[in-house]
Formats: sequence, C-alpha cells, structure tokens
Amino acid sequence: MLFFTQCFGAVLDLIHLRFQHYKAKRVFSAAGQLVCVVNPTHSLKYAATRCAAAQASTEQGVLPPCHHHEAVHDPQLVPCTCPLFSCPWEGHLEVVVSHLRQTHRINILQGAEIVFLATDMHLPAPTDWIIMHSCLGHQFLLVLRKQEKYEGHPQFFATMMLIGTPTQANNFTYRLELNRNQRRLKWEATPRSILECVDSVISDGDCLVLNTSLAQLFSDNGSLAIGIAITTSKVHSSEAEM
Amino acid sequence: MLFFTQCFGAVLDLIHLRFQHYKAKRVFSAAGQLVCVVNPTHSLKYAATRCAAAQASTEQGVLPPCHHHEAVHDPQLVPCTCPLFSCPWEGHLEVVVSHLRQTHRINILQGAEIVFLATDMHLPAPTDWIIMHSCLGHQFLLVLRKQEKYEGHPQFFATMMLIGTPTQANNFTYRLELNRNQRRLKWEATPRSILECVDSVISDGDCLVLNTSLAQLFSDNGSLAIGIAITTSKVHSSEAEM
Repeated sequence: MLFFTQCFGAVLDLIHLRFQHYKAKRVFSAAGQLVCVVNPTHSLKYAATRCAAAQASTEQGVLPPCHHHEAVHDPQLVPCTCPLFSCPWEGHLEVVVSHLRQTHRINILQGAEIVFLATDMHLPAPTDWIIMHSCLGHQFLLVLRKQEKYEGHPQFFATMMLIGTPTQANNFTYRLELNRNQRRLKWEATPRSILECVDSVISDGDCLVLNTSLAQLFSDNGSLAIGIAITTSKVHSSEAEM
Repeated sequence: MLFFTQCFGAVLDLIHLRFQHYKAKRVFSAAGQLVCVVNPTHSLKYAATRCAAAQASTEQGVLPPCHHHEAVHDPQLVPCTCPLFSCPWEGHLEVVVSHLRQTHRINILQGAEIVFLATDMHLPAPTDWIIMHSCLGHQFLLVLRKQEKYEGHPQFFATMMLIGTPTQANNFTYRLELNRNQRRLKWEATPRSILECVDSVISDGDCLVLNTSLAQLFSDNGSLAIGIAITTSKVHSSEAEM
C-alpha cells in the first residue's frame, strides 16, 4: 500500500514538474531554450552548523567567507566558491566546476540561452537557488538569493559569476529577463569573477534586485522564471587570453 | 557688484546644465532623443502645510489622496492628479494637463523617446521628480519618487501614468531604461491610468524599483538619466476608442 502511495506521489510530482516546464516554455517562447527547474536550498553558510565541514577534512580549518586571498597559501589554488556552504576545500580554478558538482551537487546546464525556473519562492530567507551554466567555452554560476537586508523585508538578488578570472569575466555580458503579465524587467551586466565574493556582490546591490511585491508580480504559482542569455563582449581578447 | 555676481552665477548654472545635458546625450546616444533636466520637488502631499490648498478655493475642502471617486460628485469630473500636492481642484479629464501645467508648473515634453535627467538624487526622501510627456496623441505623467518604505532605507520608484482612462492606457507600453558602467536595467509595462492613484502603484511596487546602491551605480555626479520610450500596443483599438 505504501509502495503504491509513493508511486502515486512520484507520478504527481512528475506531472507538476512537466506543467511548470510547459508554463515556463510558454512565457519564454523562443525555440531551443532549455527550461531548468531549480529547487531552493536553505543557505547554511551563516548557520551555526556548517554541513560542508563534515564532508571535508577538518584539519585545514573553515575559511572565513570573502577572505579567500588571505587564507590561500598557494597562489595557484582557489578556495571553494560555493555560495551555500563554508567549505574548507581549495584547488586549481580548472577543478572548481567538478568540486561544485560532486561535493555540493550543483547541476550544470548547456546552452547559450536557458530559462531558470526557481520554485517555492515563498520559502523564508535565507534561501538560495543555484545552477551552473556552461556556454561559450566557459562555466558560469547563477545565484538567486532571498535575503533580508532589512529585517522583516526579504528581497531577491540574482547575479551571474564566471568560474574564471576577473579578466576573463570582462569578455562577457549576461542578461537576466523576467517577463509576465505585460511586464518585462531586464538586467544586463558584465559577470563578476567567482574569485570575487558572491556575498559582496549581493550586499553591494550590483545585481538584479527584486522586492517581494515585484517578485510576486513575476511569479506564477510560486515559481519565478528567469530567462538567461550570455554573449561575448570582446571575442578576440577572450581567445587571446585563453 | 551684486548684479555681476548674480550674472556670473547664472552663467555658471547654464554651463552646468549644458554639461549635464551633454553627458546624458553621450549615454543615450540615439539621434533625436530629447534630454530633459528635471529638478526635484520635496513632496508636500503628506506634510502638515498643504501649499496647493492656498492656490485654490478652500470651500470645496481638501480631497483625501487616493479616494478620488468618493469625493467627486459629478462623474464627468476628475480630481487633481498631481502627485505632489493635495489639491482640491476637479475638472474634466481633457483639462487635467493644463491644470497640471498652470497650477502645479509641471513641464511637458514632446517626442516618442526622451531622456529624463533627474538631478540631486542625494536629497532626502520624500522627493519627487515629475514631468509630462506628450506623444502618440496622448499625455503621460512620469513620476520618479524617492521614498522610505522601510525607515532609514530610501528607495527610488519610477512609473508612467496615462492622462486618460484605464481602457486607453491598455493600448500603450512604456519603457524605462538605465544604462551606465556596462550595466543596463530595463522596465517595460502598460502604463496605469492617472485615475488610479500613483501612490498605490508605488506602494504596490508595480513599477521600476531601485535600491540606493543601484541608483548610485546608475547615477553620474548625482544625476540619474532615464531613457523613456512609449509605443502603441494595439493601434486599431486605440484609434477606435478615440
């Protein structure tokens, strides 16, 4: 009996996901756009219990957030850039993507234009929706964060970081687009490098910022669809550097 | 001596205005765009002293903001829609524009695409920057407001209202665009009718909302340039109604 109940639940979940996928496709009707349903993660970075610490060696000690450069001994190594956990891992820039996938289970998507469908927008802050995005020969980290900068007034912050150096990041432009109910909001900027701290980008407010009321206007049934596009701003200098 | 000092001051002001105008033109480089320097007005609507009341007859009594329909006796008459003052004036929709120009000294500009250059963004809230915009055979009211929804945290709200009925407003789309430092923010929506209250549009957050940090990122020397464009969404139904 329990087995059948679970099966029925799984089928319902699948139908719900399919329905959300269909709705997002309808909004962003451009052909070839990949819709990715992203579930929220309650941010544990600033919580008393740091889950990631258990996953890795405790001998290295937990790196304080945003003070990467002081803690890294070998200049070739970069610390873990996962916005969710304070993780003691450090390694070469080239293996950050595999660390984020394997240890922090962040999904990666291919394609120049994708739709990021964040579910359960009503969940209390702090909550993060995170995905990696592979395009134009690089990997990007998209972070949507619900955070209370002013107590009792949660806001949504969305930004895109290049998993690469600041010089490489300067070669790209990313666009985030919300489109619903005859309203459209577009944010275009140069991505920041993952070596800069996502927390400081968000606290500086140098990203797409949504009040709760605006987020609700753009949400459909508790889910927010964000269209993402990445373009190259300087093709030749990007290739020269690589 | 005083005369020469005043003349020198006036020349300096002219040079400053010309410089701001030039900077805005450089940002919004599209040919034919009119740049309009808009000075701030400290909102007196909710202040104890209501300046507008002195300008008009006191016999009619001061209309409470946003409760227009209750106070208007003749359904053909609409109340004053000036966002700055609680004004007891009422009249036909066709003469609202001339009332706003003559009594409240709100400027009007012609052209499908204009640049609204709001000066002195640092002034404390509540402050409004207001202009009327004439295009496509209609007049629109652009309101940029600095307001503290959360005490100690001023935000900027920008919206466009049609000086017409809600049905007429549905025929248009307006776009507000900020563009500076490799960042671009665009808001597109259907304008609201001036018969709806600008205060409620802002309190609902159904407009372009900027945190102070984002406003600073887009500002240049204390001035914020907003590119404005209005298009018709349904040409035939608009003409049929007119």
